[in-house]
Amino acid sequence: MSKQLWRNNLINITPYVAGEQPKGDNIIKLNANENAYPPSPKVRQILDSYKPEDMRRYPSADALPLREAIAQRNGLSIDNVFVSNGSDDVLATAFRAFFNSERPIVYPDITYSFYPVWCELLKIPNRTVPVKDDFHIDAQSLYGEGNGGVVFANPNAPTSLGESREFVKDVLEHNKDCIVIADQTYVDFADKGIDCLDLINEYDNLIVTHTFSKSRSMAGMRLGVAFGSAELIGYMLAVKDSYNSYPVNRLSIETGVASVQDEEYFQSTLKKIVATRENVSAQMKQLGFEVLKSQTNFLFVTHPQFAAKAIFEYLREKGIYIRYFNKPRIDNYLRITIGTDEEMSQMIEQIKAFMNK
Amino acid sequence: MSKQLWRNNLINITPYVAGEQPKGDNIIKLNANENAYPPSPKVRQILDSYKPEDMRRYPSADALPLREAIAQRNGLSIDNVFVSNGSDDVLATAFRAFFNSERPIVYPDITYSFYPVWCELLKIPNRTVPVKDDFHIDAQSLYGEGNGGVVFANPNAPTSLGESREFVKDVLEHNKDCIVIADQTYVDFADKGIDCLDLINEYDNLIVTHTFSKSRSMAGMRLGVAFGSAELIGYMLAVKDSYNSYPVNRLSIETGVASVQDEEYFQSTLKKIVATRENVSAQMKQLGFEVLKSQTNFLFVTHPQFAAKAIFEYLREKGIYIRYFNKPRIDNYLRITIGTDEEMSQMIEQIKAFMNK
Repeated sequence: MSKQLWRNNLINITPYVAGEQPKGDNIIKLNANENAYPPSPKVRQILDSYKPEDMRRYPSADALPLREAIAQRNGLSIDNVFVSNGSDDVLATAFRAFFNSERPIVYPDITYSFYPVWCELLKIPNRTVPVKDDFHIDAQSLYGEGNGGVVFANPNAPTSLGESREFVKDVLEHNKDCIVIADQTYVDFADKGIDCLDLINEYDNLIVTHTFSKSRSMAGMRLGVAFGSAELIGYMLAVKDSYNSYPVNRLSIETGVASVQDEEYFQSTLKKIVATRENVSAQMKQLGFEVLKSQTNFLFVTHPQFAAKAIFEYLREKGIYIRYFNKPRIDNYLRITIGTDEEMSQMIEQIKAFMNK
Repeated sequence: MSKQLWRNNLINITPYVAGEQPKGDNIIKLNANENAYPPSPKVRQILDSYKPEDMRRYPSADALPLREAIAQRNGLSIDNVFVSNGSDDVLATAFRAFFNSERPIVYPDITYSFYPVWCELLKIPNRTVPVKDDFHIDAQSLYGEGNGGVVFANPNAPTSLGESREFVKDVLEHNKDCIVIADQTYVDFADKGIDCLDLINEYDNLIVTHTFSKSRSMAGMRLGVAFGSAELIGYMLAVKDSYNSYPVNRLSIETGVASVQDEEYFQSTLKKIVATRENVSAQMKQLGFEVLKSQTNFLFVTHPQFAAKAIFEYLREKGIYIRYFNKPRIDNYLRITIGTDEEMSQMIEQIKAFMNK
């Protein structure tokens, strides 16, 4: 290929080559923390009654009907709720709105892998702090008058561990001069006492994020949420309105509303997943695994005798996809999404087969 | 409100206050260039047969089924097609991928208002060049060895004017050292000889963008497209994959495929809109309006005796919403979306009433 000058202006990035996506009827997919169960049956009713002629109109610019339903469900005002195209989009919008100082924003070394990516995209100085040896986040490591912002996932991924509401309060008390983002992607699967959503009424520098991709079984529809003071949410709406107009499509809004309004189904699904999680956790401990105390819809495990990578590869050969991270500190751990009881039994059987080889 | 230090780090932007959205059964909405007709009836079939349980899975990361359908429809390879969450998202991704030099990118002074916004967001130096007195784009003004990139809408908005395929070729011949983006949002409504999509086979520094929001009646589903050489599309996929994972939701992909595969319905809708446009254009000329030669689904008009702003306000009082821009050079013009024949008759009647006051 001739070296044309316009190539000098291309972004400095490796062109994308699509990864292998597992397909087929016999696959068990436990590698993306997707929900084991379908969304609320009310979603089907929305599709049945939806008039395609409405598609010709742009959606509500600020996803009003969905923000209204979410506010109502959580006893908040619509001014406290921001909605966008998946929680990645929500978090990127928050980074753009709130992290504009010369000071570094701070986040744990083991956490969601997109935080450093948005820092790079938006040229935000940043600094990681190590999680403790037991993988819990060290609140004191997030203290600091020099912080340009703080972001952490709680419960955290891929560790599956949760920190208490008091932990979040502690971090807030020591970060009065910057915005703190608590990414609560997995909080619906957690014990009581972890959710810190109510703290937005007490701390006007707190943003709490959520997603429809995990507990609401709607990863395919791309819906994420941020909660915060009316002032902070106003800035997020301004960023969205200025840089990325009309982001949430009509059917995601409508089906999202249906999901939020079906609390009973939501709770019953959560209960099933938590029960399976506790059951699988106990079985894996019996097999000698160290299983971190999960507050999520996945387990983070390691085994003193068997290499994580070998287990991962063995299961993949058997059509069972779990997640292995070749990264410092966690390269002998596995992240396993909680599927149905049937899927988990098959996985346990294959792990037993591997161990008895 | 007390001046807390974290406020220093907020983005420098005016918090958003939602604008008045026209609502009600008697409203005629001709202000967003939405399509007058519903999308393909095949979209209804997709909703009928869609299994909500599929929503629990993340979508195809690179919108594969839709890229395939679009490639096939246009006689291209899937490697030439990029799809994302509305053409705003497509254009922002292209800006991020291709405009990374210290040299300014160049675009006409009267054009789509988001180009300068993304330049600001991504800190891209930029420079506008005036369109000619007749509002056509001056090809020579886009020439230049110093360009960091070129972007123009063709047909252009809000002018409604189209430039020929030869114009695009001319611009390309004089911009061999940077990426040229031809934003073809409205091209499906244009005469033959304007579409330059085939030039991507000849110029590997050309990106052509499209949208489902206008000609395909799917503004509500947020789908935009870019075409280009496999090399350029590879960079756009890399940017999307790196900064904004999983952007197009499952139902937009599926309904988009249905639309692309219904060529007959698509052509019949275009034909109706173009016929209405020509008819309304003739009627408005009879009323003394100067009507620019539209290659789009809207008209750009001015009247020598009546102030555009006064007409705009009169129609709004009557529940007919068109667009008025209080901007240099075009502040005595109106942009009027082509609705149904019935809607346009009502608008013409009200304009007559205004003129006879």
